[in-house]
Amino acid sequence: MSTLSIFSLGGVYEIGKNMYGVQYGDDIVLIDCGSKFPDESLLGIDLIIPDITYLLENPEKVRGLIVTHGHEDHIGGIPYVLRQFNMPIYGTRLTLGLIEEKLKEHGLLQNTKRIPIDSKSVVNLGAFTISFFQTNHSIPDCLGVVFDTPMGTVVHTGDFKFDLTPVHKQSPDLHRMAEIGKKGVLVLLSESTNAERPGFTPSEKHVGDHLREAFAKAKHKVFVSTFASNLYRLQQVIDAAILTNRKLMLLGRSMVNVVRIASEQGYLHVPEGMLVEPEEANQLDRHRLAILCTGSQGEPNAALSRLSTSNYRHVKVEAGDTVILSASPIPGNEKNVSRIVDNLFILGAHVIYGSGSATGMHVSGHGSQEELKLMLTLMKPAYFIPIHGEYRMLHQHRLLAESVGMERDDVFIVNIGDVVDFTDGVPKQERKIPAGSTLVDGFGIGDVGTVILRDRKHLSQDGILVVVVTRSKADGKILLGPELISRGFVFAPEAEGLMEEASRVGLEALLKLQGEGVNQWGRVKQGLKESIGQFLYAKTKRRPMILPIIMDV
Amino acid sequence: MSTLSIFSLGGVYEIGKNMYGVQYGDDIVLIDCGSKFPDESLLGIDLIIPDITYLLENPEKVRGLIVTHGHEDHIGGIPYVLRQFNMPIYGTRLTLGLIEEKLKEHGLLQNTKRIPIDSKSVVNLGAFTISFFQTNHSIPDCLGVVFDTPMGTVVHTGDFKFDLTPVHKQSPDLHRMAEIGKKGVLVLLSESTNAERPGFTPSEKHVGDHLREAFAKAKHKVFVSTFASNLYRLQQVIDAAILTNRKLMLLGRSMVNVVRIASEQGYLHVPEGMLVEPEEANQLDRHRLAILCTGSQGEPNAALSRLSTSNYRHVKVEAGDTVILSASPIPGNEKNVSRIVDNLFILGAHVIYGSGSATGMHVSGHGSQEELKLMLTLMKPAYFIPIHGEYRMLHQHRLLAESVGMERDDVFIVNIGDVVDFTDGVPKQERKIPAGSTLVDGFGIGDVGTVILRDRKHLSQDGILVVVVTRSKADGKILLGPELISRGFVFAPEAEGLMEEASRVGLEALLKLQGEGVNQWGRVKQGLKESIGQFLYAKTKRRPMILPIIMDV
Repeated sequence: MSTLSIFSLGGVYEIGKNMYGVQYGDDIVLIDCGSKFPDESLLGIDLIIPDITYLLENPEKVRGLIVTHGHEDHIGGIPYVLRQFNMPIYGTRLTLGLIEEKLKEHGLLQNTKRIPIDSKSVVNLGAFTISFFQTNHSIPDCLGVVFDTPMGTVVHTGDFKFDLTPVHKQSPDLHRMAEIGKKGVLVLLSESTNAERPGFTPSEKHVGDHLREAFAKAKHKVFVSTFASNLYRLQQVIDAAILTNRKLMLLGRSMVNVVRIASEQGYLHVPEGMLVEPEEANQLDRHRLAILCTGSQGEPNAALSRLSTSNYRHVKVEAGDTVILSASPIPGNEKNVSRIVDNLFILGAHVIYGSGSATGMHVSGHGSQEELKLMLTLMKPAYFIPIHGEYRMLHQHRLLAESVGMERDDVFIVNIGDVVDFTDGVPKQERKIPAGSTLVDGFGIGDVGTVILRDRKHLSQDGILVVVVTRSKADGKILLGPELISRGFVFAPEAEGLMEEASRVGLEALLKLQGEGVNQWGRVKQGLKESIGQFLYAKTKRRPMILPIIMDV
Repeated sequence: MSTLSIFSLGGVYEIGKNMYGVQYGDDIVLIDCGSKFPDESLLGIDLIIPDITYLLENPEKVRGLIVTHGHEDHIGGIPYVLRQFNMPIYGTRLTLGLIEEKLKEHGLLQNTKRIPIDSKSVVNLGAFTISFFQTNHSIPDCLGVVFDTPMGTVVHTGDFKFDLTPVHKQSPDLHRMAEIGKKGVLVLLSESTNAERPGFTPSEKHVGDHLREAFAKAKHKVFVSTFASNLYRLQQVIDAAILTNRKLMLLGRSMVNVVRIASEQGYLHVPEGMLVEPEEANQLDRHRLAILCTGSQGEPNAALSRLSTSNYRHVKVEAGDTVILSASPIPGNEKNVSRIVDNLFILGAHVIYGSGSATGMHVSGHGSQEELKLMLTLMKPAYFIPIHGEYRMLHQHRLLAESVGMERDDVFIVNIGDVVDFTDGVPKQERKIPAGSTLVDGFGIGDVGTVILRDRKHLSQDGILVVVVTRSKADGKILLGPELISRGFVFAPEAEGLMEEASRVGLEALLKLQGEGVNQWGRVKQGLKESIGQFLYAKTKRRPMILPIIMDV
């Protein structure tokens, strides 16, 4: 019997870029391929995707990619990974619809095999018979994945909550989960996003109540900002607008796109004639209009931010309007969100902001501790791998597993690249495969590494000083310079004296080296760097990057 | 009668760098002079302080600076401002002690007049008779300030909460406040930090209960990280350590400094022999040691961060140790704090983290809505200026004032530089004085402006490409180059081909211009910039800063 191996290429010890793999012998099936946004330390980087070295080393073994749902942290890496390595993609109708938008942008649609599935599908890939179960999250058509393998059953939950009063009909399929658990699960991979949060996450319906109330109270326009992908939320905003006899305007590219795709596919119900364009909206009474917009996380170029600085021609936030932030700020975004809230208040709007639990205007799409325990109890796996979360979340999820009766030794906390190998049904966490973060910058995938980032960091702090010296090729005599050009260091018109002094210091260092008979480029450059660098630090307490250039003519 | 004017040079529409002014005729008295930390957009900037142009324009009118308490957002700007403009400083013993540490560092101690005051002092400065009242905050010796002016009474609260069971004896002086209010207050300036928070802020004593419980439970070492300046918190940690028979080690420069100053001055009571150095701590049983350390906000170089990566020789966080984060993460710091918590969990510690209201390990030093209403009710001012907060907080504070019976027209929300002028007791908000943010970078105060910051931003995103061309002075012939040197753009060894192509593109552009008879530096440089820039963007979708350098020899 072969070894059954489970690994993560992204999504553990981090939030985002989820990618997991199940391998049996020569068959690898992947689950999800997400992206995440860089933090401020990764200067100039656009996106982070999983490092797929392991797949590039084993291309003949990869049978396909199963996508659990259409969120960026599960699909955002797909076009970049496909540019390195093509494979068939399995997903539900909505999920594939969202992926296809990306493939089109990257010119990959023609060459990528896409296989629609639903919660009733059964897919045979190599040694695996793969089936699914319906879960409930903040986007429709979410799947959990069940791998029947020769060694036993592997379950991957995808993202989930147990919303028992869902807005659409997509209830979590408790009966199917119970059935899977009853038949026996060798290992469960379950998401840990809210493992730190006690209790049970409130139902999405809860938000609908508050939205309707706010719409009913509002005397003028109502703006609602939320994640475009949260179709349940969008539907509830649409319903509140209908109820209060308002037309609806959409602001923000992703909002317009998602509403189009989801309406076409039947996931969203917008009455004929309800949507208005800005020109038409302008003609309406203020209390006859609602606006759905992007930017709830404070993204500087998104609609809400532009509204807060009155940066749209056809629609303005005016005194007396209501603005609802139907989202909780994700850690790291608080400042940007607060700045927008400040500006909206300055415009005289009534702003409903803050955490969803305080305002009732947002609920999480992820299950809290009681729901994670419910999943563990339904699946009663022999072994458990908490996924989808930073270390403390995985750790808390392990404690939850222990609280429902699992042994600590049967829970495996893995980092990306760690492999859990099952031989004769017995797990062992010893082996590693290549894994990491691949940085996307412009067209470059993975070409920006530590050297470039270190240089960007240095440049960002104190700027650069280019030092150009022209020497005679014949006798090494200094013909011109040192000429100093700076950017991001000091403001040249104000620092002329400083620059002249620094040039003199450089020249002295050059002449001294010449006097000592030193004229190799390396040594001369080092001499310029050190002398000018020390001089400037003593004068300014700043350390610009110093880039000496020596031209021998 | 002259005009009574009130203005802010910092602290409104923002958090930090508090500085307020009260002027009557030719007498200006200032209140506080804080600093704040730059956000990520201000690359390379160390600190932000108030722009004091108005004071530099009116040096003969400034009578002095009154400091309400010793927090950085109230004292951090002092040495930088004093380097531009000297004036006498009034503060309580502890406040002056903390300021003097700064003055020493900046070599300003000798030349700065420092006048110790307490809550009973009366100071006459120009037209003002200034008295004080004791408040309660997260550092001892906090004052509210009362200006008796020919036009009426101006009250500035400083930072405050109403902790009725304070850890030391410094209760808020309700009787004095009542007396001031009863005599009549023309205008109140009251802080707005927690104006968004309902209820009453819990007492500092509440934290003591939780600390003692955690110390009693802990089987091994206990680490507590908190703000060094929160002496009440430090005392409670010390008391919990005494109670559980532990010695105490201090980690972090500011922790060591503050404990020294505060012990000397009698604000902190550390039993003889309780403090241990790392070498001695190493000899103790693990359950006989507590560690007080800096870094509760996730500061990358502070003690807690270094502990989380096992970066101290003499003391390590080991499995079974308890680590208490006795502070709530300030917005913007969540990610850094979370990373540390993750690492501490990986080391096997029991970590108590999260918001103070959930863990009981932190309470705010600022009064919540009920306390702000209490202050408004005690002072019952004719006019009100909410201070110390971003716009939404000032706005919420205005709503609170309205809720206790004030008219909206009697509340003035001011931005920095806005002046509220009282003529014959009637206020008018029309005039502006210069105000803004002065950026400190190294030794430079205010020399880094938008050009440098824009360049740093550009450099940080895509790096720089220096393009050097050497021409013959005689006939303009190109002798050398274009030679390309990049930093932070592409990794040179991997991008040789790209660089060669770009150099060719540059050369073609040069030759074309020469063919057209163009050889002014400006035009030639522009030609190089555009041709190479466009070429590289098409190839990489990145826009490095392009810096052409032409050497004519």
